[in-house]
Amino acid sequence: MSNVLAADIGGTNIRLAIVDAEGLIVAETRLQAELSRHAEQSQATAETHVIKTLTEAIRPFAHEHGVDRLGMGFPGFFQRHNGLLASSPNLPLLQNFALADRLADALGMNVRVENDALCAAIGEQKFGSGQGRANLLHITLGTGVGSGLILNNIPYSGEHGMAMEFGHLCIEHHDGRLCGCGNYGCVEAYASATALMKRFQEICDCAVPDAKTIFEQAREGHSCAVTITNEAGMYLGMAIAEAVKLLDVTTITISGGLSGGWDILYPPLKRELDNNLISPQKGRVEVLRSRLDDNAGLLGAAVIARGGSPA
Amino acid sequence: MSNVLAADIGGTNIRLAIVDAEGLIVAETRLQAELSRHAEQSQATAETHVIKTLTEAIRPFAHEHGVDRLGMGFPGFFQRHNGLLASSPNLPLLQNFALADRLADALGMNVRVENDALCAAIGEQKFGSGQGRANLLHITLGTGVGSGLILNNIPYSGEHGMAMEFGHLCIEHHDGRLCGCGNYGCVEAYASATALMKRFQEICDCAVPDAKTIFEQAREGHSCAVTITNEAGMYLGMAIAEAVKLLDVTTITISGGLSGGWDILYPPLKRELDNNLISPQKGRVEVLRSRLDDNAGLLGAAVIARGGSPA
Repeated sequence: MSNVLAADIGGTNIRLAIVDAEGLIVAETRLQAELSRHAEQSQATAETHVIKTLTEAIRPFAHEHGVDRLGMGFPGFFQRHNGLLASSPNLPLLQNFALADRLADALGMNVRVENDALCAAIGEQKFGSGQGRANLLHITLGTGVGSGLILNNIPYSGEHGMAMEFGHLCIEHHDGRLCGCGNYGCVEAYASATALMKRFQEICDCAVPDAKTIFEQAREGHSCAVTITNEAGMYLGMAIAEAVKLLDVTTITISGGLSGGWDILYPPLKRELDNNLISPQKGRVEVLRSRLDDNAGLLGAAVIARGGSPA
Repeated sequence: MSNVLAADIGGTNIRLAIVDAEGLIVAETRLQAELSRHAEQSQATAETHVIKTLTEAIRPFAHEHGVDRLGMGFPGFFQRHNGLLASSPNLPLLQNFALADRLADALGMNVRVENDALCAAIGEQKFGSGQGRANLLHITLGTGVGSGLILNNIPYSGEHGMAMEFGHLCIEHHDGRLCGCGNYGCVEAYASATALMKRFQEICDCAVPDAKTIFEQAREGHSCAVTITNEAGMYLGMAIAEAVKLLDVTTITISGGLSGGWDILYPPLKRELDNNLISPQKGRVEVLRSRLDDNAGLLGAAVIARGGSPA
């Protein structure tokens, strides 16, 4: 089968790639594009802006590479029964939006869109560390914490496309840290890049480094960095245990920027995971670092571009 | 279709019922039977004892009513791919046990067996408050806390039949109460009949009533009873929120002895549920009291006796 175009859409960044049938990225580009504008007053103008922005970003790259199928990971809740974007946390004006159809019309391409975190799970199962596992929980640790679930080879998105809000599991019910979602004690408030940096700012009397530097400092034994990265790993392990107790899924893969701190995060993660599972599950759960780096989402988008996976 | 025999197996109690095609219980009996014996030394003798005990309990009732199909809810983890009982917390000697086949041979009947909590979910979806819902989380609040999940009309039991250990979600990570599973802070350590009575013993300077009486005292405003039932409702609400964040299932049904305290449990449950959900899920989740009293499990066993439900 010929190459397809895969897109991974963030708040201000768009990644585009040409992917072949074996999951190899043969060309790639990154663009800045602002999908949300404060000037937007109505759903109609917001929709027009999103379609226009995406079309302008995608069309030249698509033409250059002569592809006619696009798969896209997009941050929002998609309804399985009608394919509509029900809502998107960062683009509140969009409700029940026919994103894929509108984009297909504008681009003159075959277009399929899926939740970005679910795309990453699909990519990880097809080409990454989750290859060959019928059941997979994939976690993306980046600015925020995303996750996607595959059950019996079918991506699971729930009744309203809102399943797997793993990043908002509460793992600290008392004096939990405030999360971007408005609740307290969420995983994302401890184990995202944003959280590490905020936490660093709070407990250290020095300039705030980025997450990568925080891991380097932890490796060198700096106490603040050790404390907060240890905490992030522990909370991740506790939250994964909760998910395993409900789902009985025994392969967990982790990608995203923070997976670069695997050597630091994994030991406390594994310890708390085993501590919190029920007895017959202890020792049965594998937590694997993604071997796709940041590309799980793009490769999953390529899978859905070919009509694969979502049922 | 003719009547079937439904069985609900507990640690020391066996309930048997004859159920018609509309889910009406036309005859019923309860027996005492000890499935576990400390004298048991090997898996073979434990298996023989379980089959003998169940056969002696079931055969007379089956003959009396002339039924040839048996569905059974049994406390243990069943593997979907081969139907074996992988393990049972109360009967540790049983491992990968062909319970259904052995029982079918001994009784000369068509036998199907499923996890007891999953049976209750199946019964609730077919005949109870969850009727007509394709997705359902059913919780049984009794001596312990059990739960079963239906996704897209298919009972979900996970990779190893261990899904939906809802009763062992941790909702108190600091100074949590010791649970029977060996972990701390589990739902079951706060919101089961056993937990209410233990908690009462700890904080009250008076004789320990049963759970039903604790609810009556809470209605009368006795402070100990108010405190611990309010706590049970709150923790249930928090735990349901965690399950909804992962599963995006919006119908929750609750049965079992503690559902008799619905008027007391529901207000704090509902409040903490809404507090802990992510914004787009708030207000979307229905928590319903079962209308099947203690019969959800029996009625689910009748469904599987007819070859229904598990895929």
